[in-house]
Amino acid sequence: MSTGFFGDIEPIRYEGPESTNPLAYRFYDPDEIVQGKRLEDHLRFAVAYWHSFAWPGGDPFGGQTFERPWFGDDMDKARLKADVAFEMFSLLGVPYYCFHDADVRPEGKNFAESAARLDEIAGIFEKKQAQSGVKLLWGTANLFSHRRYMAGAATNPDPEVFAYAAATVKSCIDVTRRLEGENYVLWGGREGYETLLNTDMKREREQAGRFLSMVVDYKHSIGFRGTILIEPKPQEPTKHQYDYDVATVYGFLKDFGLENEVKVNIEQGHAILAGHSFEHELALAAALGIFGSIDMNRNDYQSGWDTDQFPNNVPEMALAYYQVLLAGGFTTGGTNFDAKLRRQSLDPQDLLIAHIGAMDCCARGLKAAARMIDDKALIRPLEERYAGWNGEEANAMLAGRRTLEQVAERVVKDGIEPQPRSGRQEYLENVVNRYV
Amino acid sequence: MSTGFFGDIEPIRYEGPESTNPLAYRFYDPDEIVQGKRLEDHLRFAVAYWHSFAWPGGDPFGGQTFERPWFGDDMDKARLKADVAFEMFSLLGVPYYCFHDADVRPEGKNFAESAARLDEIAGIFEKKQAQSGVKLLWGTANLFSHRRYMAGAATNPDPEVFAYAAATVKSCIDVTRRLEGENYVLWGGREGYETLLNTDMKREREQAGRFLSMVVDYKHSIGFRGTILIEPKPQEPTKHQYDYDVATVYGFLKDFGLENEVKVNIEQGHAILAGHSFEHELALAAALGIFGSIDMNRNDYQSGWDTDQFPNNVPEMALAYYQVLLAGGFTTGGTNFDAKLRRQSLDPQDLLIAHIGAMDCCARGLKAAARMIDDKALIRPLEERYAGWNGEEANAMLAGRRTLEQVAERVVKDGIEPQPRSGRQEYLENVVNRYV
Amino acid sequence: MSTGFFGDIEPIRYEGPESTNPLAYRFYDPDEIVQGKRLEDHLRFAVAYWHSFAWPGGDPFGGQTFERPWFGDDMDKARLKADVAFEMFSLLGVPYYCFHDADVRPEGKNFAESAARLDEIAGIFEKKQAQSGVKLLWGTANLFSHRRYMAGAATNPDPEVFAYAAATVKSCIDVTRRLEGENYVLWGGREGYETLLNTDMKREREQAGRFLSMVVDYKHSIGFRGTILIEPKPQEPTKHQYDYDVATVYGFLKDFGLENEVKVNIEQGHAILAGHSFEHELALAAALGIFGSIDMNRNDYQSGWDTDQFPNNVPEMALAYYQVLLAGGFTTGGTNFDAKLRRQSLDPQDLLIAHIGAMDCCARGLKAAARMIDDKALIRPLEERYAGWNGEEANAMLAGRRTLEQVAERVVKDGIEPQPRSGRQEYLENVVNRYV
Amino acid sequence: MSTGFFGDIEPIRYEGPESTNPLAYRFYDPDEIVQGKRLEDHLRFAVAYWHSFAWPGGDPFGGQTFERPWFGDDMDKARLKADVAFEMFSLLGVPYYCFHDADVRPEGKNFAESAARLDEIAGIFEKKQAQSGVKLLWGTANLFSHRRYMAGAATNPDPEVFAYAAATVKSCIDVTRRLEGENYVLWGGREGYETLLNTDMKREREQAGRFLSMVVDYKHSIGFRGTILIEPKPQEPTKHQYDYDVATVYGFLKDFGLENEVKVNIEQGHAILAGHSFEHELALAAALGIFGSIDMNRNDYQSGWDTDQFPNNVPEMALAYYQVLLAGGFTTGGTNFDAKLRRQSLDPQDLLIAHIGAMDCCARGLKAAARMIDDKALIRPLEERYAGWNGEEANAMLAGRRTLEQVAERVVKDGIEPQPRSGRQEYLENVVNRYV
Repeated sequence: MSTGFFGDIEPIRYEGPESTNPLAYRFYDPDEIVQGKRLEDHLRFAVAYWHSFAWPGGDPFGGQTFERPWFGDDMDKARLKADVAFEMFSLLGVPYYCFHDADVRPEGKNFAESAARLDEIAGIFEKKQAQSGVKLLWGTANLFSHRRYMAGAATNPDPEVFAYAAATVKSCIDVTRRLEGENYVLWGGREGYETLLNTDMKREREQAGRFLSMVVDYKHSIGFRGTILIEPKPQEPTKHQYDYDVATVYGFLKDFGLENEVKVNIEQGHAILAGHSFEHELALAAALGIFGSIDMNRNDYQSGWDTDQFPNNVPEMALAYYQVLLAGGFTTGGTNFDAKLRRQSLDPQDLLIAHIGAMDCCARGLKAAARMIDDKALIRPLEERYAGWNGEEANAMLAGRRTLEQVAERVVKDGIEPQPRSGRQEYLENVVNRYV
Repeated sequence: MSTGFFGDIEPIRYEGPESTNPLAYRFYDPDEIVQGKRLEDHLRFAVAYWHSFAWPGGDPFGGQTFERPWFGDDMDKARLKADVAFEMFSLLGVPYYCFHDADVRPEGKNFAESAARLDEIAGIFEKKQAQSGVKLLWGTANLFSHRRYMAGAATNPDPEVFAYAAATVKSCIDVTRRLEGENYVLWGGREGYETLLNTDMKREREQAGRFLSMVVDYKHSIGFRGTILIEPKPQEPTKHQYDYDVATVYGFLKDFGLENEVKVNIEQGHAILAGHSFEHELALAAALGIFGSIDMNRNDYQSGWDTDQFPNNVPEMALAYYQVLLAGGFTTGGTNFDAKLRRQSLDPQDLLIAHIGAMDCCARGLKAAARMIDDKALIRPLEERYAGWNGEEANAMLAGRRTLEQVAERVVKDGIEPQPRSGRQEYLENVVNRYV
Repeated sequence: MSTGFFGDIEPIRYEGPESTNPLAYRFYDPDEIVQGKRLEDHLRFAVAYWHSFAWPGGDPFGGQTFERPWFGDDMDKARLKADVAFEMFSLLGVPYYCFHDADVRPEGKNFAESAARLDEIAGIFEKKQAQSGVKLLWGTANLFSHRRYMAGAATNPDPEVFAYAAATVKSCIDVTRRLEGENYVLWGGREGYETLLNTDMKREREQAGRFLSMVVDYKHSIGFRGTILIEPKPQEPTKHQYDYDVATVYGFLKDFGLENEVKVNIEQGHAILAGHSFEHELALAAALGIFGSIDMNRNDYQSGWDTDQFPNNVPEMALAYYQVLLAGGFTTGGTNFDAKLRRQSLDPQDLLIAHIGAMDCCARGLKAAARMIDDKALIRPLEERYAGWNGEEANAMLAGRRTLEQVAERVVKDGIEPQPRSGRQEYLENVVNRYV
Repeated sequence: MSTGFFGDIEPIRYEGPESTNPLAYRFYDPDEIVQGKRLEDHLRFAVAYWHSFAWPGGDPFGGQTFERPWFGDDMDKARLKADVAFEMFSLLGVPYYCFHDADVRPEGKNFAESAARLDEIAGIFEKKQAQSGVKLLWGTANLFSHRRYMAGAATNPDPEVFAYAAATVKSCIDVTRRLEGENYVLWGGREGYETLLNTDMKREREQAGRFLSMVVDYKHSIGFRGTILIEPKPQEPTKHQYDYDVATVYGFLKDFGLENEVKVNIEQGHAILAGHSFEHELALAAALGIFGSIDMNRNDYQSGWDTDQFPNNVPEMALAYYQVLLAGGFTTGGTNFDAKLRRQSLDPQDLLIAHIGAMDCCARGLKAAARMIDDKALIRPLEERYAGWNGEEANAMLAGRRTLEQVAERVVKDGIEPQPRSGRQEYLENVVNRYV
C-alpha cells in the first residue's frame, strides 16, 4: 500500500547516542520518561505540509528543484500527496501534523469549489488519522500566496478581500474542528505594508482587530475548543508585518481585549529576524501569559530573510526548551517543523533525514533543559540574585504601598548607597555547558 | 559677558536658500508661517546638554577627543558649562533645551549632595531661562552611567537600586517642574538584560510597571502638568531593552493601565536599530494615541550601534514631519537634537554648524510635509484606496455587526471574487519627490 | 503598430521641475549640457528586461501578480515581449537596454534549441535596434534560475554543469557581440555555497578563476571589444556568494591576473546588503581601477534581502554620481535599472512611472554632483586636509625612501607630537545639502 | 608572593567532564594527545591583557564598573597589573599571553617617555616569562585610543601621525622580538573613515600599503622571525575599516605584493560583524594561504557592535577548529581570548571562570573536530561530491587546456544535460551533531 516514494524503508527507531545510522534516532526515544512525562508528550512533534510537501524548491532567483510525483493542480495529485505525507508521518513516528488549506488541495475556480475540495481532502485526512493515530496539531488558511491577498487579507484596503479571507478562515476552522485539531493558527504574511505612503495603519489595525474578534467569536459559537494562535513575524514578504514580535502582538491583543483568547506560535527564525533570540520570545510570551506553541525553524544568522532551516544547534534548543519547561510545557501547543529542506536536498531520504536530525536535536535540548531544571542549576542563582526583593520594604514598594516621595525620603534618611554585585554571566554560561 | 568659547560670532540668522554662509540658516526662518503657525512653533527645536556639552568624544575604542574648558568634576566647571550652553542656545535661537541631571552637575559624594548640586544648578538655569527666553523642553535623570545602575535602575535585582533611582527621578521631576519643563522623559538604558540566564523578565517587568506608576502618581500629586515620555530603544547598552520600540511600549502601558498617562519620545536612530523606519514609529505612535516628542538623531544605516548623528537627509525628514503633522503636530513635545558631533569635529564652530545644518534639514522637511498635506498629494490617493470601506456592508463588518458565518455566506452567495488593484507605490514615491 | 499595452500614450518628454504630469520628466532633459556633455551621455540609462518584462510579481510567499499578455513559454510570447519592451524603451527615450538569455527566449528542450531560440530573438533585436536607435548596454547569461545550476555554474561540483555554463556564456557573448553590446556581465548568483560542510572553497574558487579566464580569452579571440563586468553581491540566493563585494572581487581578479581585464557592475542594493554604502563601493572600485557600470536598484534599509527597488532618494543619488564623475564618468558602462516594480504595482503605467521617477532622481543627483565638482565644494576641503602630505619628508616616507627606523628616529629627534584637527563632517554634510 | 587578588586559590586543573567544580577544566587536559599532539600544543591558548586587565568595564552609556587595584596612571600600578596578570596566566596554565603597549604601561608625556616605559615593563615581562614559562604569542601597538589617532594612524591625513605611528610600531616590534613573541599583530581600528566626504580612499590605501611594507622590511632588517598578522574588522569604531574581512585584506596584500609576508588573525566577532560565519573566514584564509591565528571572542548574534564575549557554543567551536585543523593547525598562531568579561562580572573569580569556560569550550570543539577528521566524516562525502572533476576532460578544462569554444562544442556534440544531485546539507549537519 506504500506509495514507494521513500523506497524500501523501515520506520525510524531509537538506537541510542552511539548509533551512526542516519535513519535512526539517537536521542529521541518517544517513551523515555522525563520529569514524569513521555518525551513524545513533552515535545509533541508535528510535521508541516507546507514546506515538506508543497514547496517546490524555488527561491527568488530560481524555480523548482524538487520533482515530486504529487506536484500538480488536480485532486489526484492532492490525494497522492496525502498518501506520501501520512506515510512519512508514520515512518517518523510523529504524533502530529499541520497544514494550510492551500497545501492540501488545489485552488478551485471560485471560493465554493476551493472549500469543497478542502472538505474532500478533510474526509481523506479523517480516515488517515484514524488509521495512523497521527493527529492534527493545527490547521490554518493560506491568506498570502494568491494575488488577491497581495495587499493584505484582513488588512486589505478592499473589504471584499476581507470578506473572502473571513470566509476562507471559517472554512479552515470548520475543517480543523472536524479533524479535532488542537489549535488554529493565523500567520499574517500580508498583514502589513510595503510603503506607508499608501497605508492607513490605524485603519488597518482596526480591520485586523475586528477580523480576529470575529474569529474568536466564531470559535466559541461552534464550540471549537482549540487554541487560536497568532504567529509573529517582523517582515517578509511585507516590509513591515503588523504581528512583528511577541511584544507587538501582546499590545494588539490587549487593545482588542483578546489577551485571554489568543496565544502565540513562536518561530525561531522569526524571532531572529525581529532582532530577538528565540528564548527571549519564549520567555516574554510566558511572562505575558500568551505562550502557545512553537515552529522550530531556525534562521541562518548570516541571512536577512527567512531561511526556515531545520534546527541543528543543540545548545540553542536547550535554552529554548528551558523556557518552554519553565512556562509549564506545552498544553495544546507543540513543536512544529515548518522547516524547509535546502533547495539542493533533492532526495526523498533528505526529507526523512532532516526531520530525524531536527527531532534528535530537540530531544537532546529538552532533556538538557529538564536536567537544568531538576538541578535548579540556573534557578537557584536566580533566586539568590533577586532575594533582596523578599524584604519587607522592598515588598511594600513593589506592592504599591509606597509613594515616590516616601521612597526618596528613605534614601536620604538611611543614606542608601547601593553596591553593585556580579551578574555572573560567564559562570551561568558555563553551567549551561555542563548540560549540553 | 560672553565666555568667548565660540569666538566673535553673531547670532545665526536666516539668509535664505541661496546663502552659502555656513553660519546662517537657509531654510529655518522661525517666523515663517506654515499652515497658519510660525515655523518655530511647529518645530519646537531643543538642544540637548547630553551630547553637545557633556560627551567628551569617547567611543569604545578611544578616549576623549574634545577639550572643553568646562570638563571636570567641580561645580565651577558646571557653571561654566551652563554659561556656554545658554550662549549657544541664544546664538542658535532655539526655543528649548533638555538635560539629564548628570549632564549639568557633578555627582556628589552621596544622594543628598547630588540632589543639592542639581538644585543649585536649577537656580542658575532659572535665571538664564528668564534672561534668554529659552525654555526647558524636558528634564530627565541619568539612570544608566553610574555603576550602581549596571544591572538596571527600576528593574535592578537589588531593591535598593530601585529606591535610589526613584529618589533620583523625584529630584529630577521636582527640578523639571521648577524650571517649567513641558515634559519629563524616561529612557531606560539599563532596563533590560545582558543574558536571560540571570534574568527574571516577568518580575523585572513588574518592577518597571510599578516604578512608572509611582512616577505618574507623583506627577499628579505635585501638580506637574508636563507629559511623561518614554523613549524606546531596542538595545545598547543592554542586549535587550524592555522599551524596545513603540509597539512594545504600548503593550507595556496597556498592561499597567498607563496608556493615557504616558507618551513616547521617538528617536530616529533607535527606530532604525529596532528594524523600523522613523516614519513607521511616528505613524504607529499616532495610531495608538501615544505620540509625544522626537529626538532627531539619525543612525548610520551601515552601523549596528547608536551613532546619534545630526540628521542630514531631507527626504527622510519630510516623511517624518509628514507623520508629525498628520498626527496634529507637537503639543508639549518638540524636536530635540540628542545628537553628537562626530568625534573628530573638534572645533567650537562644528557644534554650531551641526545644529544649523540639522535645523535647516528639519525645516526643509517640515515645509515639504506641510505642502504635501495642503495639496492632499498623498491623502487623496489614500482615501481612494480605502474607499470601498465606506460601503454599507463593509461598514457593518468593521463595526462588528457581522459574524464570520454571515460574511462567509455572503461570499458564497454573491460569488465574491476580489480583483487586486495597483498599490501605486512608485507613483506615490514620485509625488513625494515633487516636494523635496 | 503599437501593441497597445501602454494604451494611448505619447513619448515621455521633459517638462521641467514645476510639472506635475506623472508621465513627464521634471529633471531629465537628455539634451541638457552638463560639464560639456549631454545628460543622456552622462547617465547612459538602460532598462533591464529581467525585472521589467520577465518577472511575474512573485516572492517567496506568493505567486504571480502581474498579468502580462507576453507571459508564456513559446516563441510567440517572446516576440510580443520584445515588441512591448522596445515600445517602452522608445516611450521612455532611453538609449540602452540589457538582458539575460532567459529573459528573452523560452528555454529549449536542450542546449542547442535554447541557443537557436536566442539567435532568433537576436535577429529581431537587431532590427528593432536599427529602427529605434536603442542600443544594447550589456548582455548576460542566466546561470542561476534553472535547477541544473542549483549548486553553482562555474563553481558546480559537477564539471558537466561547468561545461554547460561555459557553452551558455559563449552563446550569450556571441549574441552580445552581434548586437554590438558595450559590455558583457557575469552575476554569479549561485557561485557561492549554502553550507561549508559540503563545499571545497579553494577548489570552487579555482573553477571560478578558470571560467573567467576562459571568458576573457574568448572575448579576445573573437575581437569582442565590450568590457567584461562582474556584478558583486554578498549573498542571496546563496548563503555566501564568492563575488561578495568590490574588495572581494578585486582580490579574486588579482589572484588570477585579471584585474586589467574585468571591471565591476555595482548595484546599490547589493552594496547595502554587503554592509557598505553605494558610494563606498563606487569610490573603492574607482580607487582600485575596476569601476565599470552601475545597477541602480536600491535596497530597503529595513529589509535583509534584495528588494531591487527603483531609486527615490535624491541625496543618495547625488553622492553616487559624485563618485562616478570623480572617477571620470562612464566609458562603456551606464545606469541600468535592474529594478522591479513593487509586486502590487499592476498597471502598465506603473512600469513607465517607476522608470520616469527613477530617471528623474538620477538626473537630479547627477546634476547636483556636477555642480559640487564644478564648485570644488568638497574637493577643496579635501585637498586642504591632506596638504601635509605635500611636504618633502612626508613624500619621502610615502615614496618608500624612509625606513621604519629612520622615521622613528625623526619622531624622537624632532619631538613630534601631532595635534588632531577637526574632520568637519557636519560642515561637509551641510555643503552637500546646498546642492540637493 | 601572590598579590592576593584572586584570593586563596589553587591552579586550575583538569577534572574531567563529570566535574561540577566551576574552577576546574572539564575538557581541557593540556596533556591529552589528539592526532599525535598535546592539546596544549594544538590550542596554544593566550590571554589578552587588553580586555582582561586594562578594560575598566565601560561602555558608551556608562563608566567604569570594575575596581581593580592596578587601575591608575603610574608605573607602580603597571607593575602590579603585571603581577596579577602573570598570576592569572599561571593559575589558568595558559602557555601564552598577548598585549598592546598601552595595556601594559601608562602613556608618557611624549613618545620617548612612552617608549622608555614600555622597555621597563618589557624587562619585567622578561623575568616573569622566565619564571613562569609563559610565552608571548604576540605584541601589538595601540594605534586607536589616543586622540592623535582619531583620524587614522597609517591612514591619517597628517603625515606626522603616520610618523608617530611608525615609531610606535617600531618600538613595539622591538619589544616583541626581545620577548621572543611569535607574531606581531596590526589591528587598524582607526584605519578607515567616518565619512567619504572628507576621505581620499585611494590615497589612504596607499599610505596603508606603504606603512605595512615598512613594517615588513623592518622585521626582516632586524631578523625578527615572528609572523606579521593583520586582524580584519569591518567597522567600529570607524564607519568603515579598510581591513574589512579576510577577502579584503587578501586583495590589499596582493596589491602591495605582501601576500607571502603577512597573514591574518581572525576574530569570531569580527567575522560576524562582517556578515560571515567564523568558519567562513577561517576556510577562506586557508584557501588563500594567509591563515595565521585566531581571536576567540564571539559576538552576540543580536547585537550590531563588537560584544567581544567569551565563546560558549561548542558546535560553533567545533566547526571553527575543524577549519583550523584542515588548514594544518596553528604554526606561530594560537587561540587568543581578546574577550571581555561582561560589565557586570565584577568579581575576581569571574575573570578565571570566563577563561575556564571558554578554554573548555574550545577544547571540546577541537576534540570533536579532530574526530570528524579522523573519521573522514565530512571529507569522504566532500570527495564524492567533487569526484567528477577527476575525469580527464574535466581536468583539461580546469587546467586551462580547453577554450570556451571547445567546451561549447562538446556540450552540443555530446548533448550534455547535467542532472542535479542532492547537496545533502541536512545529512551533513546531522553528522556534525554526532561529534559535538
